[in-house]
Amino acid sequence: MGRCTVIGAGSWGTALAIVLADNGHEVRLWGHREDQINEINSRHTNEKYLPDVELPTSIAGYFDLEAAIKDIDTVILAVPTKAIREVLRSLVSFLTGKVLICHVSKGIEPDTLKRISEMILEEVPGHLVEDVVVLSGPSHAEEVSRRQPTTVTASSTNIEAAEKIQDLFINQHFRVYTNPDIIGVEIGGALKNIIALGAGISDGLGFGDNAKAALITRGLAEISRLGMKMGANPLTFAGLAGIGDLIVTCTSVHSRNWRAGNLLGKGHNLDEVLNNMGMVVEGVRTTKAAYQLAKKENIEMPITNAIYDILFNNCPPKDAVEGLMGRGKTHEMEDFYLTYKKD
Amino acid sequence: MGRCTVIGAGSWGTALAIVLADNGHEVRLWGHREDQINEINSRHTNEKYLPDVELPTSIAGYFDLEAAIKDIDTVILAVPTKAIREVLRSLVSFLTGKVLICHVSKGIEPDTLKRISEMILEEVPGHLVEDVVVLSGPSHAEEVSRRQPTTVTASSTNIEAAEKIQDLFINQHFRVYTNPDIIGVEIGGALKNIIALGAGISDGLGFGDNAKAALITRGLAEISRLGMKMGANPLTFAGLAGIGDLIVTCTSVHSRNWRAGNLLGKGHNLDEVLNNMGMVVEGVRTTKAAYQLAKKENIEMPITNAIYDILFNNCPPKDAVEGLMGRGKTHEMEDFYLTYKKD
Repeated sequence: MGRCTVIGAGSWGTALAIVLADNGHEVRLWGHREDQINEINSRHTNEKYLPDVELPTSIAGYFDLEAAIKDIDTVILAVPTKAIREVLRSLVSFLTGKVLICHVSKGIEPDTLKRISEMILEEVPGHLVEDVVVLSGPSHAEEVSRRQPTTVTASSTNIEAAEKIQDLFINQHFRVYTNPDIIGVEIGGALKNIIALGAGISDGLGFGDNAKAALITRGLAEISRLGMKMGANPLTFAGLAGIGDLIVTCTSVHSRNWRAGNLLGKGHNLDEVLNNMGMVVEGVRTTKAAYQLAKKENIEMPITNAIYDILFNNCPPKDAVEGLMGRGKTHEMEDFYLTYKKD
Repeated sequence: MGRCTVIGAGSWGTALAIVLADNGHEVRLWGHREDQINEINSRHTNEKYLPDVELPTSIAGYFDLEAAIKDIDTVILAVPTKAIREVLRSLVSFLTGKVLICHVSKGIEPDTLKRISEMILEEVPGHLVEDVVVLSGPSHAEEVSRRQPTTVTASSTNIEAAEKIQDLFINQHFRVYTNPDIIGVEIGGALKNIIALGAGISDGLGFGDNAKAALITRGLAEISRLGMKMGANPLTFAGLAGIGDLIVTCTSVHSRNWRAGNLLGKGHNLDEVLNNMGMVVEGVRTTKAAYQLAKKENIEMPITNAIYDILFNNCPPKDAVEGLMGRGKTHEMEDFYLTYKKD
């Protein structure tokens, strides 16, 4: 049995702690709010993040990070992209031996344009990290916490590390595949939030399912294009961490990014939307990072550019969407082939 | 300007007639029910199929097939798969010169295992057919008839023929791509209905968005696997006629196949469901054809097999879905690679 610490007691971290506890592992769940940890330990609930879900009593909540990671072999990192470097620095100061690090965050760091596994390897010295794995896929936390059927993919440059994570998590409700393409899995997970903003904008403008399906499909094409240029395997984008996650995020009204996009489509500006949401909308930062990446890699990303213009250049959403529809006549595969031919 | 006849005055045929009329072409719309044609010509509506939509007055309804196709250059074939051979035989008896045939149907013929373009080339003698094109993609007819943004792909073995269809249909609301891979476009369009049945079953069983996204993603993988074996380009399945159409069909409660699956998931048997629906559920026939194709081509299609067992072997839906989740641990790309490696 594994000894695992989940860092981050939000909805996703807590849901993953439930899966690990169901599988009989020793599970510690660390959070930075003491009242929340007390609730987890005394009442075995996490009402704010997973309302009406009873946690297994074997999940031990920790407020003290040093105690939380003492003598463990696996860290599950479930914090927002923005907080990752800070959390890792604290973690490193307490680690006494090598750990396997599995992250479940979705984003790209603006300006540095780093993926999350790259940030981890920058922050954690080599003698303290066994390997880095990412776990990603179509997975609303609420459904996972209720043991609804869910599939995800575990990816690492070292496939044996991915298989360790697969072994820790897999059970009859939670099916884990492995994939050796960590670049593709991380890019797919991050960039889907841009397309989710777009899907929300399209719905907010009153457009229908046809427009949204087009946006998702063409969005996937441009994510694949950028990913391939960065060294990803295009098949990853046809898988769980690509189209799978994209579908869940773009068609669910529970998605924060979709909701932010929806408000933009209805005519609110970015500041109003962010105030209204009152929480991090990961896709806004990711749009900036992807816009920068596309420029750097010289990849055509018309949907990302359109959403960037809406977010940061006050472009009216309707003009941006109509601009996308008005592009010249194209062969559907041209975009894919362009990259294949060039490289 | 083109002279086009749309064969089939259901919702999709009528919506496409609207697009052609908007583009200034001469458009005749043929249907086999005289009262419906009279309604189209006198009131410029087709209430049963497109409620509350006003048709352009330039659309001329025809009940007489010979008159409908006299001196035209393009036929748009918009009839159910089951009716195609019969309609083509009537058509052939009246054709006096070559026509370009564009079909918009979605299915595979059980037993013969033919795609629709193959059926067309069997039924229409070579001296009467210029080329065969398929038009496919994520496109609810209602939205197209209301000029909502929509994207589709036109495909033919002769790309110039696909470009003619692109030129006829493209406008600012209706964006047409071309794709040279007619096998992939036809397979994608047909087999998505099987996955839509599965999505409905999953929802009917009370499973959530995670399960449905998994089903769509893994369903796409098995469609791609079969398609590649039949000579399709795998990228087609990542495009509008693949994942695009799949998303619209699996996430819309308006989809007939989803609705049929939903009833199956709720515990009704196939006969009850078909009686309840009172219309053709294309996915049921297609499941049989795909099951036969997978056997013939020796391709693993676990989702298609599970749905076949539910439809034709009285397998309880819950057992079938749990059977899918319980498969061994897998590399995500194994399925794709299997085919790549083998061939």
